[in-house]
Amino acid sequence: MRQKNFRKGSRPPHAHGSAGHGPRPGHKPAESREKPRRPTETRGSGGQWLYGLHAVQAALANPRRKLGRAMLTPRAAEILGEKLLKRVQVEIMEPGAIDRLLPPGAVHQGAALEAWPLKTDDLEAVLDQAGGKSGEPGAARARRIVLVLDQLSDPHNVGAILRTAAAFGVAAVVVQDRHAPPQSGALAKAASGALDLVPYVEVVNIARALDQLAARGFWRIALEGDGGQSLAEAVPAGDVALVLGSEGSGIRRLVRQHCEAAAFIPIDTAMQSLNVSNAAAIALYELRR
Amino acid sequence: MRQKNFRKGSRPPHAHGSAGHGPRPGHKPAESREKPRRPTETRGSGGQWLYGLHAVQAALANPRRKLGRAMLTPRAAEILGEKLLKRVQVEIMEPGAIDRLLPPGAVHQGAALEAWPLKTDDLEAVLDQAGGKSGEPGAARARRIVLVLDQLSDPHNVGAILRTAAAFGVAAVVVQDRHAPPQSGALAKAASGALDLVPYVEVVNIARALDQLAARGFWRIALEGDGGQSLAEAVPAGDVALVLGSEGSGIRRLVRQHCEAAAFIPIDTAMQSLNVSNAAAIALYELRR
Repeated sequence: MRQKNFRKGSRPPHAHGSAGHGPRPGHKPAESREKPRRPTETRGSGGQWLYGLHAVQAALANPRRKLGRAMLTPRAAEILGEKLLKRVQVEIMEPGAIDRLLPPGAVHQGAALEAWPLKTDDLEAVLDQAGGKSGEPGAARARRIVLVLDQLSDPHNVGAILRTAAAFGVAAVVVQDRHAPPQSGALAKAASGALDLVPYVEVVNIARALDQLAARGFWRIALEGDGGQSLAEAVPAGDVALVLGSEGSGIRRLVRQHCEAAAFIPIDTAMQSLNVSNAAAIALYELRR
Repeated sequence: MRQKNFRKGSRPPHAHGSAGHGPRPGHKPAESREKPRRPTETRGSGGQWLYGLHAVQAALANPRRKLGRAMLTPRAAEILGEKLLKRVQVEIMEPGAIDRLLPPGAVHQGAALEAWPLKTDDLEAVLDQAGGKSGEPGAARARRIVLVLDQLSDPHNVGAILRTAAAFGVAAVVVQDRHAPPQSGALAKAASGALDLVPYVEVVNIARALDQLAARGFWRIALEGDGGQSLAEAVPAGDVALVLGSEGSGIRRLVRQHCEAAAFIPIDTAMQSLNVSNAAAIALYELRR
């Protein structure tokens, strides 16, 4: 898609994969086939396999990521390039050997990387940083957008939402720490690198996070099928926090009570609802129009 | 999501599941656990399991569907209701027994239905029908939209696109018969019933289908990251055929040459592209604004 700057990210840029980085990075032979040990120093969970070129590339480019070994086909090692790979121990192997490390059907594109989950970002710190940005020179500051996911559990949906959030310059994605999917390989693959690009804020209490956003001047909109206005009507000029609920249960009542407005996306009577990641994509597009 | 009529569908309405349909439908005990035989009379492929309440409900409500047996939990049978279930032989079973019929991890919500793939709709016939509709009384006729999928292969993406297509009153989804995913349970689940609601047209030649659409007055827009205009700028007042390419390969050159315009969705430089079902959702929203 054509690109347009909504925000200058403080995270490392998402380097696009390209061939021709010179000689293949030095690597050790895959003499050992056992799975890497899984230390437990980060929030009680160990390293796990991220896979797919974009997800692996973004994790390698993120200095905040603790990384283990990379298992790559020759072609994937060439695409990722020596510079990115100097942080990790690389083992070159056949696609079938990578298949065996990963869940059945994982589309790894020749790249698997042992990575530890990112520590949560702090909401106040993220907002301070996002608030200090001023958009493109000569242009008005783009509105800040925060997405709040109320107990979404499907890793593919949450990953797809992260991808779209990065594509629309969202300042943060807020989830409830005990009711969010783990930062799994499936989530990172669906996010296509965005897990390492968008601040991902795990909070104890969603309602309290909405209070913090209100104190910062964010207008809080719950996206609901039976909202009072269409989203286009509900959107004010300034910063917006957009709340999405799970497909099964929707937005919890207490969370809804911490929003100024509930808005819907107009759809045909033939369907009851949109997929939540598609609803998020439409809402972000509307907010950036 | 709030509902609004873009179209009066010629397909059976998507009845919403609700409890209270009276007594549980008559059923036979699940005396036999073997998988049903799979006849091969429809396009060389047999029946297969659809699953998930919306997908099963829509298939039951579609008189064009050839159906086999339904395997349901008591709760799912109650939700679907006696009226819908009278077409099929129902076996009541525990969720775990349904699990064993389906691929690992299939979220069936207590409902699996043996169904045969729908025969393709004919593009000219579908357009005749869609052309005859005139929208809400007193309102201007809504533009007709046809989605053209150029060799998209992922069943989750194609299913999600069908769901969004139904939600935005799309007249037809056109795919190339040899390069489209089969009408699998996974596709039908992602479509959430839309496979039985939106005309699904399998054609031999996408370029020829675009010619047919042009002859009917459709403006053909290729959605591409490096398109010449933003989608909002590229959209004319009338009927539109929107072409989407696969995430890996994009739109083939010959197909692109059969479009009047190429349009992009403006996104941040941080991401290379949007997920194709999210791009489709945004485009359909823009076309219906």
